[in-house]
Amino acid sequence: MALSTQHIYEPLTEEKAVALAIKLNLFAEDAVLACREIGDGNLNLVFHVTDESNKGVIIKQALPYAKVVGESWPLSLHRAKIESDALKQFAQSVPQYVPEVYYTDETLAVTVMEDLSHLQIARAGLIQGKSYPLLAKHVGEFLANILFYTSDFALDPQEKKELVKQFTNPDLCKITEDLVFTDPFFDHDTNDFEEGLQEDVEALWADFQVKLEAAKLKKKFLTNSDALIHGDLHTGSIFADEYTTKIIDPEFAFYGPIGFDLGQFIANLLLNALSRNEEEREELFIQAEETWNVFSDTFTKLWEKDSLEVYTNVDGYLEYVLKTTWRDAVGFAGCEVIRRTIGLAHIADLDGIADEEKRLAAKHHALRLGKALLLNQQSITPDILHEIIKVTA
Amino acid sequence: MALSTQHIYEPLTEEKAVALAIKLNLFAEDAVLACREIGDGNLNLVFHVTDESNKGVIIKQALPYAKVVGESWPLSLHRAKIESDALKQFAQSVPQYVPEVYYTDETLAVTVMEDLSHLQIARAGLIQGKSYPLLAKHVGEFLANILFYTSDFALDPQEKKELVKQFTNPDLCKITEDLVFTDPFFDHDTNDFEEGLQEDVEALWADFQVKLEAAKLKKKFLTNSDALIHGDLHTGSIFADEYTTKIIDPEFAFYGPIGFDLGQFIANLLLNALSRNEEEREELFIQAEETWNVFSDTFTKLWEKDSLEVYTNVDGYLEYVLKTTWRDAVGFAGCEVIRRTIGLAHIADLDGIADEEKRLAAKHHALRLGKALLLNQQSITPDILHEIIKVTA
Repeated sequence: MALSTQHIYEPLTEEKAVALAIKLNLFAEDAVLACREIGDGNLNLVFHVTDESNKGVIIKQALPYAKVVGESWPLSLHRAKIESDALKQFAQSVPQYVPEVYYTDETLAVTVMEDLSHLQIARAGLIQGKSYPLLAKHVGEFLANILFYTSDFALDPQEKKELVKQFTNPDLCKITEDLVFTDPFFDHDTNDFEEGLQEDVEALWADFQVKLEAAKLKKKFLTNSDALIHGDLHTGSIFADEYTTKIIDPEFAFYGPIGFDLGQFIANLLLNALSRNEEEREELFIQAEETWNVFSDTFTKLWEKDSLEVYTNVDGYLEYVLKTTWRDAVGFAGCEVIRRTIGLAHIADLDGIADEEKRLAAKHHALRLGKALLLNQQSITPDILHEIIKVTA
Repeated sequence: MALSTQHIYEPLTEEKAVALAIKLNLFAEDAVLACREIGDGNLNLVFHVTDESNKGVIIKQALPYAKVVGESWPLSLHRAKIESDALKQFAQSVPQYVPEVYYTDETLAVTVMEDLSHLQIARAGLIQGKSYPLLAKHVGEFLANILFYTSDFALDPQEKKELVKQFTNPDLCKITEDLVFTDPFFDHDTNDFEEGLQEDVEALWADFQVKLEAAKLKKKFLTNSDALIHGDLHTGSIFADEYTTKIIDPEFAFYGPIGFDLGQFIANLLLNALSRNEEEREELFIQAEETWNVFSDTFTKLWEKDSLEVYTNVDGYLEYVLKTTWRDAVGFAGCEVIRRTIGLAHIADLDGIADEEKRLAAKHHALRLGKALLLNQQSITPDILHEIIKVTA
């Protein structure tokens, strides 16, 4: 489909979004459409187009800059293509866990996709104390499928190398390289933390062991092209309700280390746990452990069923891959916990704690947790995450 | 320069090679040129064009198939561009160790370059018992420079990602994935070994620990894009004399694991050692150790002088990078030693031993050495390579 009449990029208005929806025949001919821009506005415009019966579509358009630091940080529009290509790639193995893509326009950096507004962003729900009984199972299955089926275990290595090229994503990777792996570990002007954390943060910057582990993890992020990863799988990139889970926003997708998404997701569960009273945390630890268990079981089944790699029959190889994946995930979780506490991009789980004393206590705890994850990658197992939270309290 | 009148590929003849040299003004106008095809003919045509004073140039043309297994194995002509691009990339930091490229023609898959026929292929010289007192120093410096300056330590990660794309080399990588990392470890029809080795080879195929290590190393080769590696750095890819070393034939170049070239080079030194009487081996062990020491010292100097990566100042990071590089090099050397003994592509060092008993003994030794390298990557240090040769004798 090539329906665009545009040959140059320009930001859509609500009127133009509606016109595009009509042109694409996504609604009945006589439908009366309404449109609202609902993006958080950092990197993208998001138009929600609906008819009278409230049937809707989402029209997402990339902006050529990152608003989060003003218009001075230019960002490649190519990320819109990365996002829609990644959604389509993921849909090959797990269509149930991603929004359907109806249309993409590279020039306009536009993706038209399934409306998920009947669901809630998981972060928002978790902050409200909601339970998502299937979230861990779904995320574990999602990750096992997308990571296995885009890896050299399941693809001809030549085909995989073409995908590595297709998903080369330097602009968005740089954001992660800087904001997750680098700036929070140095006295850098992108950092943003409360005054009460100053002493802890300075201790972190002076901790060469912590920095050495962060350096090794950054190196993995820069050089390991294991599989097509989501690249930004925090709880704000997930729509959910009691029965359904949909992973959105893979504009950071690229061929990266297999443990990264797991680490980011689990870190965000743990950060939500830190925002709660002790007696309400258990559920999050169970979710984190279950995510790993489902991932590990599903990955094992796919490995046994669909591997093209002859070495997958060798005793110990699967165990090696799973063990190193978990170990890296723990390390990546450590980086995520730290950067969400003192880096540029915070999370409402912690920042939203109204009581200053409690908020600062949670953030102090997060810094100790992040450090413990970084320094104990070899020994932390999925079943003792709640212990790590306790000993770092 | 775009001097080609060709719009489609065809293999050059000696006459056409001469015509190209004239068109490129590489000789005096009135020179009388001679031409000889001197390639070993497996993958490429190599024309040596000379004038009366024996001044010469090399015109190398990729063939669209690999002759080594008949014309039925098609090979992308793109490798000619990879080779000339890699030579130019290497020349940015170490022009003294590569032939100068005068001209490239993508359509014809032709590279015109410096004539190095006053030098000898190092493998041939080593088999004759020649000494190359500067070989280890030069190869160590070459590798430290090309690997450091094409890595994320020295390049902007965004620029590096473009180079990763540029040097994507699926066809040639597949040869290594199959012939170095896979086939020799399984009962595969590309394997080629003497009857007397049957028992040892079957024991190797049944050794799950050996296969597990080979699997891990293959995974690194498939997924680690540390730096632009040569990809085929055996002693047959090196021209040398007493004073000079020139690395040729980087058609296998791609972004791969930093320890691979070191492992292949050292393995080929050790294989040459095995082809000699015990009292004539010491020189090779010294060369192997010196290659590492020079690499390590040079890499350290470049790291301290030219790093862009802020983590390079962190205590322990350089040591970590060097340690994992050496450990991987030991493993890659193990794969190379084994595949050169029982895989498709043999080496004259071993096959050329006329006495059958001695030849078989050397090959048995090589298999034990390869296994020892694979199983002891963590404990073998550069100074005990001669001990490993002794204990596996």
